[in-house]
Amino acid sequence: MSSKDNFQIQMKKKVEYIEQLLQEYLPKQQGYQSLIMEAMEYSLMAGGKRLRPMLMMETYQLFDGSCKAIRPFMAAIEMIHTYSLVHDDLPAMDNDEYRRGRKTTHIVYGEDMGILAGDALLNYAFETAFKAFVMDSKDSLLIGRALSVLGEKAGIHGMIGGQVIDVKETGHAVSKEILDTIYVLKTSALIEASMMIGAIFGGASEEEVKKVEKIARYVGIAFQIQDDILDVTSTEEVLGKPIYSDEKNEKTTYVTLMGVEGAKKVVEEYSAKAIDLLHQLSGKNEYLEQLLIQLIHRDR
Amino acid sequence: MSSKDNFQIQMKKKVEYIEQLLQEYLPKQQGYQSLIMEAMEYSLMAGGKRLRPMLMMETYQLFDGSCKAIRPFMAAIEMIHTYSLVHDDLPAMDNDEYRRGRKTTHIVYGEDMGILAGDALLNYAFETAFKAFVMDSKDSLLIGRALSVLGEKAGIHGMIGGQVIDVKETGHAVSKEILDTIYVLKTSALIEASMMIGAIFGGASEEEVKKVEKIARYVGIAFQIQDDILDVTSTEEVLGKPIYSDEKNEKTTYVTLMGVEGAKKVVEEYSAKAIDLLHQLSGKNEYLEQLLIQLIHRDR
Repeated sequence: MSSKDNFQIQMKKKVEYIEQLLQEYLPKQQGYQSLIMEAMEYSLMAGGKRLRPMLMMETYQLFDGSCKAIRPFMAAIEMIHTYSLVHDDLPAMDNDEYRRGRKTTHIVYGEDMGILAGDALLNYAFETAFKAFVMDSKDSLLIGRALSVLGEKAGIHGMIGGQVIDVKETGHAVSKEILDTIYVLKTSALIEASMMIGAIFGGASEEEVKKVEKIARYVGIAFQIQDDILDVTSTEEVLGKPIYSDEKNEKTTYVTLMGVEGAKKVVEEYSAKAIDLLHQLSGKNEYLEQLLIQLIHRDR
Repeated sequence: MSSKDNFQIQMKKKVEYIEQLLQEYLPKQQGYQSLIMEAMEYSLMAGGKRLRPMLMMETYQLFDGSCKAIRPFMAAIEMIHTYSLVHDDLPAMDNDEYRRGRKTTHIVYGEDMGILAGDALLNYAFETAFKAFVMDSKDSLLIGRALSVLGEKAGIHGMIGGQVIDVKETGHAVSKEILDTIYVLKTSALIEASMMIGAIFGGASEEEVKKVEKIARYVGIAFQIQDDILDVTSTEEVLGKPIYSDEKNEKTTYVTLMGVEGAKKVVEEYSAKAIDLLHQLSGKNEYLEQLLIQLIHRDR
């Protein structure tokens, strides 16, 4: 068996583990408000790469962590990612009817429930993270640090901020500086939160947490530029979504700014910087290294 | 000067104190995402009774608290209340163009920014509460307890849950049982969170926190029934909003179920139960008692 096959088998097992964990943390569907719980489950269990909880877990393992509080945080980060997709898909935002081949939440449950299910997932993400206090009360200071990272990276100085700038700047040319800001906030921020929280619960020093933040930032930017490239070099069949969507939506991308070859070069640069920093950390996790490389160089 | 005038003067001062505190915790308007910060300030600083932070502070003082962590939580609860109004006003929800005589957030900033400003306020509420860890790290266990209450009462088992049932049950007759559930979740839950968090940081025992939760529950229900009554007994001038709105929106209320006199009797009952329990607490706060009575028996 090739090492690539082996990696795929490992990944599949990890995704299964994470999906079980998500099921465990989803609220029981009961009471008069069971409809919203159904909508939350519909959006959270719609598949996907489960990248953020996986990066959290792998970073935690790189530092040889042993703090149970990591588990609710893995669920929380995926809930935050999911709520952002649910709200992104709303008619007043991207107005998408399908995601990963399934009807979007507001199409199935109505626009009002789409808004409320997103709100509910964001709130429930924090509720879930707070369960860590009961599991591991002696680590309440670590939990406090992890919560601060989660809040900041998900908010106006992180993901929501990126979303706002993206909405504002679509439809006209933007500078590389603004584009970088959008990529760092919209894509890197939650990846930073994932890996930083893994490092915090793994017992990493402040300095190492800062290095992990940088790794995640580079990975997020490279991931997003790869997205720009695939939008013009892949096919609809491979990608599972329409190509040339950036042009259609009048979005400036790295491909617009520097062509496909130029964009590919930047991906290589960020990728090399991320792996170089990864090697400087005190721990080691080969699966994580493979995962980061695969993410950056993926073909869909 | 009458004691009623004196109460009004005290209240005015407290509202000013809370509004200063809110300004202090609002994010600085800077960076490419300053638009969202402007929208957050627009909705948060739109006036209002500041009831929830006031109840938190007064309950805290009743228990003679001395834990600085209360301050960010006072800001957080008002941000959560505000985000719920911003999302409530959206076209897919109540579709309101005005609130307290000002244009609603989505009317001023667009529907996409209305959704994002609500998300941003909810997320920022938690970010703000997390600042307590830095102020008062020795109290991290208390902060953890307060966060769990905040998360639960704002979410699907609290305010959002009430909102979901309300949306589902509008337009047809509902039973008293469902109506009570809506009132407890939609209105009492955040009042419960406010008073419970005040009690927790005030150093109240678990048993006393439970009593405070009950007081807040009764106050919330009575407050909401008084709303039902005013909708049919007041005038548009006094109320500052259209009367007979429940009938127009085909909403079942306590007035529908038992008439104005019946509803008034229930308000009296809940009011008496709340004040009775308040007298059983170990501390005393006359302003809080007056505030609760005034809330329940208000004429607008």
